[in-house]
Amino acid sequence: MEKGYLDLISSEAFRAILKDFPRLPAETAPLEAAHGRFLAESVLSPEDLPALPRSSMDGYAVRAADLFGATETNPSYLDLAGELPITAVSGEPLAPGTCLGVVTGSSLPPGADAVVMVEHTQDLGGDTIEIRKAVAPGENMMLAGEDARAGLEALAAGTLLRPAEVGFLAALGIHEVRAGRRSVAAIVSTGDELIPFSARPEPGQIRDANAPALAALCAQWGATPLPLGIAPDDVSSIAAALDKALDTADVVFLSGGSSVGVRDLTIEALMLLPDTEVLVHGLAVSPGKPTILARSRGKAVWGLPGQVASAQVVMFVFGCPFLAHLAGDGAAFSRPRASLEARLARNVASRQGREDFVRVRLEPGANGLPGGLPEAWPVLGKSGLLKTLVQAQGVIGIPAGLEGLEAGTTVQVMLL
Amino acid sequence: MEKGYLDLISSEAFRAILKDFPRLPAETAPLEAAHGRFLAESVLSPEDLPALPRSSMDGYAVRAADLFGATETNPSYLDLAGELPITAVSGEPLAPGTCLGVVTGSSLPPGADAVVMVEHTQDLGGDTIEIRKAVAPGENMMLAGEDARAGLEALAAGTLLRPAEVGFLAALGIHEVRAGRRSVAAIVSTGDELIPFSARPEPGQIRDANAPALAALCAQWGATPLPLGIAPDDVSSIAAALDKALDTADVVFLSGGSSVGVRDLTIEALMLLPDTEVLVHGLAVSPGKPTILARSRGKAVWGLPGQVASAQVVMFVFGCPFLAHLAGDGAAFSRPRASLEARLARNVASRQGREDFVRVRLEPGANGLPGGLPEAWPVLGKSGLLKTLVQAQGVIGIPAGLEGLEAGTTVQVMLL
Repeated sequence: MEKGYLDLISSEAFRAILKDFPRLPAETAPLEAAHGRFLAESVLSPEDLPALPRSSMDGYAVRAADLFGATETNPSYLDLAGELPITAVSGEPLAPGTCLGVVTGSSLPPGADAVVMVEHTQDLGGDTIEIRKAVAPGENMMLAGEDARAGLEALAAGTLLRPAEVGFLAALGIHEVRAGRRSVAAIVSTGDELIPFSARPEPGQIRDANAPALAALCAQWGATPLPLGIAPDDVSSIAAALDKALDTADVVFLSGGSSVGVRDLTIEALMLLPDTEVLVHGLAVSPGKPTILARSRGKAVWGLPGQVASAQVVMFVFGCPFLAHLAGDGAAFSRPRASLEARLARNVASRQGREDFVRVRLEPGANGLPGGLPEAWPVLGKSGLLKTLVQAQGVIGIPAGLEGLEAGTTVQVMLL
Repeated sequence: MEKGYLDLISSEAFRAILKDFPRLPAETAPLEAAHGRFLAESVLSPEDLPALPRSSMDGYAVRAADLFGATETNPSYLDLAGELPITAVSGEPLAPGTCLGVVTGSSLPPGADAVVMVEHTQDLGGDTIEIRKAVAPGENMMLAGEDARAGLEALAAGTLLRPAEVGFLAALGIHEVRAGRRSVAAIVSTGDELIPFSARPEPGQIRDANAPALAALCAQWGATPLPLGIAPDDVSSIAAALDKALDTADVVFLSGGSSVGVRDLTIEALMLLPDTEVLVHGLAVSPGKPTILARSRGKAVWGLPGQVASAQVVMFVFGCPFLAHLAGDGAAFSRPRASLEARLARNVASRQGREDFVRVRLEPGANGLPGGLPEAWPVLGKSGLLKTLVQAQGVIGIPAGLEGLEAGTTVQVMLL
């Protein structure tokens, strides 16, 4: 019955298989809707940014050489040639010995190669400005093209478009991008005992908690969840559900019933589908050992563990980065996960040869100092219990080569 | 001109003022749309979960006392009373000396107080099962009510509904929740030099990069951004724009032009509005010193710095948690931010009395060991440059009491 378990693979081997699935095709997205997506192509800057040198302070545009040696006790004096409103552009070069009043953002005329902050000046009247501080060329200003250069790469393919990148592209006047398409993720549950969570259970039935939790994880990672309901525990029903899911979705997450038999049914059902290969029969990780992965019609079909906590941990650790990979993330499996450093509050045992993902809750550190490391307390409890996940703020990984971690070890907690 | 700067306040004082704004009213949300929201009321469990004791393994339901002392060399023998399919419920008590075949998830009958894993048994035929391992009462099973107890609090008010909580509520059959309403966040830019990012700039004009970046930050934190365009740099235009924004939005983010004068215009414009009080004239933080906060018609109006990088850092550090606070987060300003620990790669100076938020990019640690701390390299550059934010993966805070941090210091990097 457990024959597949002979082929347990490591998380590294699993990630290598996942990485091999092709990304989804690119599509054009307006910049307003591009946040959180991944660039499918590199973006070249269409122009110099800024187009002209600009002041980054309120003060006076100057020729730096005119202020050589200027100090509080030995100021320089320049003739005020005028004031530059924020929207003005002057093609007239700044003459030696003169300065121009500017505000932050003013475009600087030819010849002006620095800005003196207003705090270091005094307007003496009669168009004479006293300047009490020398400036280096380029000081308090942005050079033309300092932010981006026309024709050069502004952002590389595979870049995640965070708010900063959205602002950067907006400044370049780029109002649409080629981004990886977000995936449609079908979610199928199987189990004769399951009913939709909104239905009323008869004795012996339980509500399907996996589907809504997995849908939330998919949505959190930018995929569109497609909940396809519950298939009964028989090979042809599961095969039919998977076949239907593959018609519309880019990836399928099946969460099996929790018994060993259901896992075998899933493999049998996959065998019935055309153009299908089971790539992974189990993982050398806990929780997650019964995880199955197949390629069907070129798409990934996941058989997640049936135990609710196990299914969510596998999805969190492996499934979510895979969704980012499909959507074009250039670093899906190496991008740092949101984490906190913590000190392990008690010993945790682990079996050698198996990578363990232990749920932990975080408590303020015992020393109570702000900035001190929080304590990570392993959440103990059966993997069928939902509250173990609710109580956990994160997950720590214990590498396969270790027999456990001792209390006091500093650990990196991936935040759930 | 800089009079308001006499009243610079600390980030702690700022957070205390922000916390004082009332949360938005609660609304009813279907569970499928509740992910990422905050519970407005505590949720009581309507029932025991699980309703009946359930097996958490494949094997045999037993009376633990029948197996006292059973070992490999001294097994116990039980009569097989039948098999319990996953959906069956038996009211018939398990008789002493007997066992029932169960799968993971099977409901257990009265009298069965433990489950023996199938690996530790052998079916000898003739309805006799050999059992080679004793079990403690409660082993390999979930007790009725072990996950949640009817009438007790399942989740507290203010809880963030992560995928785990969504699954937990689904298991309890709760298909709608009372959650804090998500805010509508108006975004207004001001500056005579600004044009919408999709327009073509004339010389002296620059595209508004703040609005789309701030909109993305709002969306990332669950608020609905309401972009209201660009107001010219005059008091009555700014006042009219704020007044309009307050008609529909729950919070207003105005990003001012970058010059000192525009900040004063904003304060003057706020003074023109009825029922308005300026609460904060500046922050003892960098970047962020020119930040303004007012209460108008009971709503928060933010005057963010005009410099693009400054505006985004203030929004990231203070504005985003405020959006969570409005939406009902019970721990908006104390919830751990997604972070990574890193080692500072070079000295960073900071002015005492001012809290500095330094953008950093992360590089793999010099020792190259997996699990070694990454290096945090301060991103240097003028705050008017957008690429400083694009190059940064995160932000480190340097407390007001320090004069800087030395290379080699371990720092917590908030991930942008």
